[in-house]
Amino acid sequence: MVAKSEIKFIKSLQLKKNRMQHGLFVAEGVKMVQDLLDSGLRVHSVYATEEGIFSGTQEEITLISASDLKRMSSLRSPNKGLAVFYMHGEDSPGYEGWNIVLDDVQDPGNLGTIIRLCDWFGIRNLVCSRETVDCYNPKVLQATMGSIARVNISYTDLSEYLAAANCPVYGSYMAATPVYSSEFNANGILVMGNEAHGISENVARFLTDKISIPSAPGSGAESLNVATATAILLYELKRP
Amino acid sequence: MVAKSEIKFIKSLQLKKNRMQHGLFVAEGVKMVQDLLDSGLRVHSVYATEEGIFSGTQEEITLISASDLKRMSSLRSPNKGLAVFYMHGEDSPGYEGWNIVLDDVQDPGNLGTIIRLCDWFGIRNLVCSRETVDCYNPKVLQATMGSIARVNISYTDLSEYLAAANCPVYGSYMAATPVYSSEFNANGILVMGNEAHGISENVARFLTDKISIPSAPGSGAESLNVATATAILLYELKRP
Repeated sequence: MVAKSEIKFIKSLQLKKNRMQHGLFVAEGVKMVQDLLDSGLRVHSVYATEEGIFSGTQEEITLISASDLKRMSSLRSPNKGLAVFYMHGEDSPGYEGWNIVLDDVQDPGNLGTIIRLCDWFGIRNLVCSRETVDCYNPKVLQATMGSIARVNISYTDLSEYLAAANCPVYGSYMAATPVYSSEFNANGILVMGNEAHGISENVARFLTDKISIPSAPGSGAESLNVATATAILLYELKRP
Repeated sequence: MVAKSEIKFIKSLQLKKNRMQHGLFVAEGVKMVQDLLDSGLRVHSVYATEEGIFSGTQEEITLISASDLKRMSSLRSPNKGLAVFYMHGEDSPGYEGWNIVLDDVQDPGNLGTIIRLCDWFGIRNLVCSRETVDCYNPKVLQATMGSIARVNISYTDLSEYLAAANCPVYGSYMAATPVYSSEFNANGILVMGNEAHGISENVARFLTDKISIPSAPGSGAESLNVATATAILLYELKRP
């Protein structure tokens, strides 16, 4: 049995300002919740409509009715369970290895895909401008496929972060040095820009190199999507 | 002034069976329509709510009211114009250069992104199984950003197409030879599988090589999205 106030509280976490205030976010669906339980993220509370659907957590699992789950959920067809987790701590992002910087990426699907890519390619730090879409937005979480637990994501002032960098800072552009002509070190920073406006002037002044993914001669496509471009650049940075 | 029957006809093209029956599809929005007009696709009819928003077509442009446009449109907020185009002809797909085969890709966003990637990387033939999502689906069209006009897309029996191939046929897998260890010729076929089930057995028997995009040691991500993987593989195939 769940109190009305508890349902209301969980619902309230659909808004960013409430997530920020409490340092909590909601994950939904059997697979996503289990992935996050396995990842070692700190757990606040877990709800399930059946016994035995989640494993490997010391936390008490509250059994609830399907209709209560529906009242808590942001999904049209909620899937058996939901859990509330503590957000990552707000450590200052570091500079070891390769680090990805996002300058105002707005689309939740793009951010979710980029988080999943960081996980795939072993990027530990994803550093976002404060205007980048919130990584605990339900649409972002869904697109990360559980990778959110394995990537350190911070929201910070990019000027401060980049000004203190002591490594090459690459920016992705439509026309610049082809990425396959560059030699990459074992560490560095790659900056990806906003979907419509690219990298802002404020951030561009910290770049040491501009790189691009050349299109085929005669291609009519104007651009690559930012998540697609990130995929190719991460692949190339990490290519042996 | 538009007749009710005309509005009804255009609305009917939102269904695949009606598109197939008439060989026509609908494009919406100023940019998309203009891109397709510029591409030389054969035009059936063009509608606009203002004069002068489309250029470079010999076709008569029918001026309509915003409310008529809304009645024709599949969008919640239609954007000033809409046009009906003839589909590409149903030529049998060829084997020159690099050709991409899709084995039951289901998500419209993925197909749209892959079409845009083919355009970017100069792939002329995209060969889809008959169960692959329809490329004239409005969500696919939106994701292609106009690239649909510049890529030859065919829906065919993949067994027949692959059985007649006289070039290497690569398939994308989760674990196989790393793509950067392969030497690619100037021509070949790359097969990408369904989002959940990968490449079907029926298609797998035609592969000459299996390739994969290795993840970083310790990565927890289970897979890459099919559009993301296509981006990386096309980049690598075309890498000088």
